[in-house]
Amino acid sequence: MGGAERVVMSGLSSGLSVFFEYDTPKIVHISSKKVGVINRLIQLVILAYLIGYVIVWKKGYQEFDQVESAVTTKVKGVVYTNFTNHSIPDLANRLWDVPDYVIPPQENGAFFVMTNMIFTPNQTQGRCEEDPSMKHVNCTSDADCHKGEAVLNGNGVKTGKCIKSTRQPGLEVCEIYAWCPVENDTLPQKHVALLEGSKDFTVLIKNQIEFPKFGLKKRNILETQNSEYLRSCRYNSSDPDDRLCPIFQLETITGGAGESYEEMAVLGGIVAINIHWDCNLDYSFEYCKPQYTFRRLDNRNAHIAKGWNFRYANYYYDNGIQRRDLIKAYGILFVLKVTGQAGKFSVVPLLLNIGSGLGLLAIATVLCDIVVLYMLKRGKFYQEKKYLYVKGDDAFQVRSYTRYCRVCTAVFYNTPLYY
Amino acid sequence: MGGAERVVMSGLSSGLSVFFEYDTPKIVHISSKKVGVINRLIQLVILAYLIGYVIVWKKGYQEFDQVESAVTTKVKGVVYTNFTNHSIPDLANRLWDVPDYVIPPQENGAFFVMTNMIFTPNQTQGRCEEDPSMKHVNCTSDADCHKGEAVLNGNGVKTGKCIKSTRQPGLEVCEIYAWCPVENDTLPQKHVALLEGSKDFTVLIKNQIEFPKFGLKKRNILETQNSEYLRSCRYNSSDPDDRLCPIFQLETITGGAGESYEEMAVLGGIVAINIHWDCNLDYSFEYCKPQYTFRRLDNRNAHIAKGWNFRYANYYYDNGIQRRDLIKAYGILFVLKVTGQAGKFSVVPLLLNIGSGLGLLAIATVLCDIVVLYMLKRGKFYQEKKYLYVKGDDAFQVRSYTRYCRVCTAVFYNTPLYY
Amino acid sequence: MGGAERVVMSGLSSGLSVFFEYDTPKIVHISSKKVGVINRLIQLVILAYLIGYVIVWKKGYQEFDQVESAVTTKVKGVVYTNFTNHSIPDLANRLWDVPDYVIPPQENGAFFVMTNMIFTPNQTQGRCEEDPSMKHVNCTSDADCHKGEAVLNGNGVKTGKCIKSTRQPGLEVCEIYAWCPVENDTLPQKHVALLEGSKDFTVLIKNQIEFPKFGLKKRNILETQNSEYLRSCRYNSSDPDDRLCPIFQLETITGGAGESYEEMAVLGGIVAINIHWDCNLDYSFEYCKPQYTFRRLDNRNAHIAKGWNFRYANYYYDNGIQRRDLIKAYGILFVLKVTGQAGKFSVVPLLLNIGSGLGLLAIATVLCDIVVLYMLKRGKFYQEKKYLYVKGDDAFQVRSYTRYCRVCTAVFYNTPLYY
Repeated sequence: MGGAERVVMSGLSSGLSVFFEYDTPKIVHISSKKVGVINRLIQLVILAYLIGYVIVWKKGYQEFDQVESAVTTKVKGVVYTNFTNHSIPDLANRLWDVPDYVIPPQENGAFFVMTNMIFTPNQTQGRCEEDPSMKHVNCTSDADCHKGEAVLNGNGVKTGKCIKSTRQPGLEVCEIYAWCPVENDTLPQKHVALLEGSKDFTVLIKNQIEFPKFGLKKRNILETQNSEYLRSCRYNSSDPDDRLCPIFQLETITGGAGESYEEMAVLGGIVAINIHWDCNLDYSFEYCKPQYTFRRLDNRNAHIAKGWNFRYANYYYDNGIQRRDLIKAYGILFVLKVTGQAGKFSVVPLLLNIGSGLGLLAIATVLCDIVVLYMLKRGKFYQEKKYLYVKGDDAFQVRSYTRYCRVCTAVFYNTPLYY
Repeated sequence: MGGAERVVMSGLSSGLSVFFEYDTPKIVHISSKKVGVINRLIQLVILAYLIGYVIVWKKGYQEFDQVESAVTTKVKGVVYTNFTNHSIPDLANRLWDVPDYVIPPQENGAFFVMTNMIFTPNQTQGRCEEDPSMKHVNCTSDADCHKGEAVLNGNGVKTGKCIKSTRQPGLEVCEIYAWCPVENDTLPQKHVALLEGSKDFTVLIKNQIEFPKFGLKKRNILETQNSEYLRSCRYNSSDPDDRLCPIFQLETITGGAGESYEEMAVLGGIVAINIHWDCNLDYSFEYCKPQYTFRRLDNRNAHIAKGWNFRYANYYYDNGIQRRDLIKAYGILFVLKVTGQAGKFSVVPLLLNIGSGLGLLAIATVLCDIVVLYMLKRGKFYQEKKYLYVKGDDAFQVRSYTRYCRVCTAVFYNTPLYY
Repeated sequence: MGGAERVVMSGLSSGLSVFFEYDTPKIVHISSKKVGVINRLIQLVILAYLIGYVIVWKKGYQEFDQVESAVTTKVKGVVYTNFTNHSIPDLANRLWDVPDYVIPPQENGAFFVMTNMIFTPNQTQGRCEEDPSMKHVNCTSDADCHKGEAVLNGNGVKTGKCIKSTRQPGLEVCEIYAWCPVENDTLPQKHVALLEGSKDFTVLIKNQIEFPKFGLKKRNILETQNSEYLRSCRYNSSDPDDRLCPIFQLETITGGAGESYEEMAVLGGIVAINIHWDCNLDYSFEYCKPQYTFRRLDNRNAHIAKGWNFRYANYYYDNGIQRRDLIKAYGILFVLKVTGQAGKFSVVPLLLNIGSGLGLLAIATVLCDIVVLYMLKRGKFYQEKKYLYVKGDDAFQVRSYTRYCRVCTAVFYNTPLYY
């Protein structure tokens, strides 16, 4: 056997030898009631956190998938308004159905129901008096009305003329180019919404969900609900069956959000309908059912710009002149949110949670070391057992090696390294 | 040198000395084929998980940024309907273009294409017979029709009169206040959608994305696609060039979702268009291209409330009387979702992943300790090497120190602490 | 005492004894300037990362909650267009108010302001010439126009006739069934938007947020802002008060996104308005205020399909014939995004962060071990102190135990196990 061969063989066998080795830390095993109890108590707290909170409560043994969903809605209901004292005859005696009060007719993840309105029919482009409640429109002469200036938050552009107001006799206001006559921005009834009857409207919510990771699909209209039941049922949170009914009376929704429909209907508002799916796939997927919660999103106590309204118009022609009906629509915007997750037992998250959780057990050793080594009377004795002092050739010359200093060393610099 | 000075100097030098110290655990190095092999195998599994899964597969060496995006769509296409047997002459011979079938004209992150409809023209407010297919509207005398009662899921409010039905001769139904005549809620054709020709419509999807953390922007209309190509191209998932074409035929989209356009068109439905950007910035940003996938979101097998439809109306005046055309629009709602992320090499996540991954290696030592110390014949020998037994002055008096008990100690209480 | 009793007692006392035990690793304490300094430096870097970045910068001592929000908008403003050279008299002299330019009137989380348009009034179903700028519509004889074929991206379906173009005299184009006359797809003014005056419009943004975990609600209209202030204020990012004003001039928004309103108004675009709430609940909730940022989402340099436009129509009847006004609306889509979180001191995340952070300190020991054991001249000496070599009965026969090999063993296989 040559020298080269010997080196190769030697290298080979050393290389192989590392596969048959095993390193384990040397442990100082101390029998002591005081420290033992402290040690076990801290470990107990950490284990309780790990098992009770991470594994059991937070389902640390499951892998999760977030819900993906599509949601559509269909509002049903009609209301007949019959106002004898109403200033606008067009609205006095008429029926309102879905296309009249759901605006826009289709919205992704939301629907709006008009509950109140200011109706200004038959507007046309022209010159007329500005609403006297606007700012900077009162005038005494034409000089007060700068031609071409837009009225701040107003309805038009000043023509430069100052004219008598018909709405507020005795007052003079600027004339404007606008859609005439301009809107009279006051609700027809103070405390009652025009379409208060909309509280009896119903909405069918169709929600199809999917957990792509697990390849599972479901809808909120359950297989167990037959078409007969679905025709007549109404959501009711306190009934075990009807709390799964996908048809909601609007008043039930606002009630579930802690609001009075009648109050909200006057100035409008925004209500969130949350559909929550919390599925534990370790049980049958059949047990996984939606939970509905409702919450008002806008501020009911807002002093400024309260509620929810917007203006829209229907345009038409009359003898070749474009006209429009302007509607300031107050109403409730229902926003749909679908949340949820599905969990299923899986080995990987369980191991990772146990692994990272056990790492926390090192804290027990750190704390006990401080007690054992520096707070017990026999600390010096334990120190000598725990530490093997080795002096390097470039050791720093320490004049006096005090016990105090070992404490700070241990606490501030070294201790976490022991584990 | 005084006593005080000596103390200060001594404290100072002890304080300094801690900077020149180093603590390292004492290791018991065991040469054993059995345990060595177990040890290496467990380590191999953990390293394979760490390197293979965490680092390579999950790109643990990259920091990530989620995509931010804006998406707009533009549908194009016309269809001419030519029905000789159609009951409603208005729809028999006419052309449909974008403003006719995209409702609402603009929607954030979605677009709707009407494919079928029930058209009820020229409605006006008044009194007329309710649709006899509604519930609780059949009557024999006026007493059956309670005045002011809204018909459940119906079209109006009962006037209190019972009249002969013209739609279903021989039947008597309640008269209602409503938009008259009321809708006849049956599709004009059983199995073919009116606008089935819409399958040839195209939609241009413009998607601009941004990775704010990396300051990179891109759009799905690539720089390499010239205007000539974009005028004629159509998305085709199986062609390497055309699968990046941002213009989609509607039939291709439903086909990609595994659905027949003709079938979906009858009752409508919801289809998600997912644009996925998976960008590895360690390569050039140019290689980062969108992937399109399609999925039907509503339930095609729903027995109840299948498909997707909504009602809307166009309002107009005729001789001062408000009229409207009511349309129950069936169609496909296309919902756009943009997902994706960009990853770029970064030292911090790499170190953190290696750090937390190496922590898992402790599991190997725990398992091997159990084997070496308690399962091997020579376990007692190894125990004596590994443990340094120290008896505190308040040690608990143990009568017999059994090997069994050390196992449970090690397994349930102590082992994780060794590392 | 019988034998059985003795065994039970013995088992009991051993079982009890484990509660009074404590295991701590044996540590080799090395005094060495070189290694000590390396050790402390690495520890310093890790501690700086832990304390500086994880705890202080990333607020590792807080638990967080993501914001939940509702946002609504209200646009105000009018503009008078006065074009003498305008080809379409309907648009020449008229006023535009909110229902005219906000389309659709209500959108969830977004609003659109029309800034430019192509207006095609009084269309009716019929036969007319196709726009000659379309592809494949030029013809010399009827044979070139295949009856029933839809014009690609065009306005109608060919009737099969070839007729003289009135728009481009001397040219012959295919006749089509369509809404006639067809749109002339060119902007009335080249570089100035019709409604450029919309830059002075204002939008009131109402944003109500909630942190459900902490049970806190707030809106962007602050309690400290009285109604007088809100009537006149305008958002101004450089003013300490006005940067909290919830009323934004549209030009300020586009300006904040680095864009010129006048330029964007011509072809339209998409601008994101981000409302960010970063709340530190360790201070008073009052200090938590919104931050507004603006960003253009579409590509301003797009060569193809630039900007944002869509077509819609107003339908009406004239002598029993359905007519419509077609509008191709260019404009700016403002998309609202609400982001943010609230953090509050909590013990659990602090402990978890410290715990996982300290784990990283093990890296220091790994690196120092390599230096001490294999790079220092006295490495062999330290190795003997650190390692207790135990030869199992099935040890692998190693011919030569080289120092080189220990290095590779340590680096590639063992080192992480030491801790």
